[in-house]
Amino acid sequence: MKAMILNSFGSPESFELCDVPKPVPQAGEVLVRVHATSINPLDYQVRRGDYRDYVPLPAITGHDVSGVVEEVGPGVTMFSPGDEVWYTPQIFDGPGSYAEYHVAKETIIGRKPSSLSHLEAASLSLVGGTVWEALVERATLRVGESILIHGGAGGVGHVAIQVAKAIGAKVFTTVREDNFEFARSVGADVVIDYKKEDYISAIMRETDGCGVDVVFDTIGGDTLSRSPDVLAQLGRVVTIVDIAQPQNLIEAWGKNASYHFVFTRQNRGKLDELTTLVERGQLRPHVGAVYALADLSQAHTRLETPNNGIRGKIVIAVDPSADTTRASS
Amino acid sequence: MKAMILNSFGSPESFELCDVPKPVPQAGEVLVRVHATSINPLDYQVRRGDYRDYVPLPAITGHDVSGVVEEVGPGVTMFSPGDEVWYTPQIFDGPGSYAEYHVAKETIIGRKPSSLSHLEAASLSLVGGTVWEALVERATLRVGESILIHGGAGGVGHVAIQVAKAIGAKVFTTVREDNFEFARSVGADVVIDYKKEDYISAIMRETDGCGVDVVFDTIGGDTLSRSPDVLAQLGRVVTIVDIAQPQNLIEAWGKNASYHFVFTRQNRGKLDELTTLVERGQLRPHVGAVYALADLSQAHTRLETPNNGIRGKIVIAVDPSADTTRASS
Repeated sequence: MKAMILNSFGSPESFELCDVPKPVPQAGEVLVRVHATSINPLDYQVRRGDYRDYVPLPAITGHDVSGVVEEVGPGVTMFSPGDEVWYTPQIFDGPGSYAEYHVAKETIIGRKPSSLSHLEAASLSLVGGTVWEALVERATLRVGESILIHGGAGGVGHVAIQVAKAIGAKVFTTVREDNFEFARSVGADVVIDYKKEDYISAIMRETDGCGVDVVFDTIGGDTLSRSPDVLAQLGRVVTIVDIAQPQNLIEAWGKNASYHFVFTRQNRGKLDELTTLVERGQLRPHVGAVYALADLSQAHTRLETPNNGIRGKIVIAVDPSADTTRASS
Repeated sequence: MKAMILNSFGSPESFELCDVPKPVPQAGEVLVRVHATSINPLDYQVRRGDYRDYVPLPAITGHDVSGVVEEVGPGVTMFSPGDEVWYTPQIFDGPGSYAEYHVAKETIIGRKPSSLSHLEAASLSLVGGTVWEALVERATLRVGESILIHGGAGGVGHVAIQVAKAIGAKVFTTVREDNFEFARSVGADVVIDYKKEDYISAIMRETDGCGVDVVFDTIGGDTLSRSPDVLAQLGRVVTIVDIAQPQNLIEAWGKNASYHFVFTRQNRGKLDELTTLVERGQLRPHVGAVYALADLSQAHTRLETPNNGIRGKIVIAVDPSADTTRASS
């Protein structure tokens, strides 16, 4: 099978398209023909070597699969050849999804939402699981509360807006002005152009000085140390952007704030919850650009480029026939 | 009435014993004859001027009252003269407890646990409320879990050990060797001499490398940045020591940790919960030293002295007749 092999940590050009043996499912495992995969900040962090201790080279990386079951190993009871599935390969535990086939334990695999194309499903598995973990399981965002989602036009942000709306929260989001319409189209109540106005003054004005209950940090920088200034008492910050720079959190005590640090843990349960929202029409991922597997290096370069003009996710069409909704790339 | 007046922010000698008018309870308020009060790190922080924007001078400060209702204002329905009560005056909202009388809204006052002396009750109101807030309401410590309590012999620590045991958790605590026996006597399962061994290696050895579910930071320093090294996945840190020094929290993401920043919010509900534990014999505060109100400056000096040899709390006997259990000071 074709696979993009990472031979050394470094630039986007570190990937090489190779022919490698098709994997064979063992007991409890499923062989999936990958129709689409996706790229995430985690993927370029892995490529750069941020997690080099956990990724033996050469490696197939990648954290999203949407595809069709091709073959099942002994003892598999929940899936049969022909089933459409989606999942996030177990992080740092075996090959990833940048290949024509992938093998996974049946216990982590979900049934693909039937209303999503493979491209859409591949765009949602990791970010959807991350958003579910962050908003539902960690920050426990509740109906009637309010949330500031940083980067609402991004791969994570545009999904977070939809999940927060499904929860029944009021959504504030920071985006560039040219993404106002997009952010509103996925459900944002108040859009803030962070280039034109400091978001803290905007939030305090829009909330009559009360602040928001939850801040979702998808951008890093100084978000952690500044968040108490926009939080209500007992507010929560949930962050998926790990940064080693020391943070001054002195304002967090006065707000009785809680900070939740999230590094995705994938499981089928979250996929099934997301599927429910998708099937009810409360969640639909946005595919902002599509690349072929052989063009993975270009896709990585694009994701790492600031202000790349992409709304939502960059997706990789592994099987060209999956690419029925090609967006402009 | 006699009161210790803070005329300027600064050293412990900033207090002056003065005669001031006895306060008069207004509608919904209760006048309490203060039998005992207590000192906490919050009290010397206030005295130093850490919260100068919230404390107009001259001021009566102090955050613990145990006493007897002397008079009630119009509309008070829950208390009558002669009732024994305890509470934490509303922080930064009116005079504190370093005086012979104190007026408070009836809504924040609790009935003193009958099995505690006024000295014991005064030692428990603020720290007990803080521990309840930290362990029960914020960290949501649960039966079967494990907790590392830093400073288990201190005013907060020795109460935290007892509440954690009442919850059904396994308690690890750091103390000096001469406090091993005391820490065990209030319920610690594993005592760690942090002077002899780094607590991280001790915890990882004692937990077979699993780490603990909760860390309770009562000491500050580098506890926030080091806590992920002793936490299990999805572990929680709860901290009551506000520090402005920037913290490197990079390890928090990998552990999917949550950090809860606590600045005490007092209410009657917590006092009543604590009373239940006291009456069931699951919680008893330890009075480590007793000073007279006129000796408040000495008491502050003692609390601020590292390794002051005090176990539990330093208490102020405002009414000398309350001092029926005088400990060595």
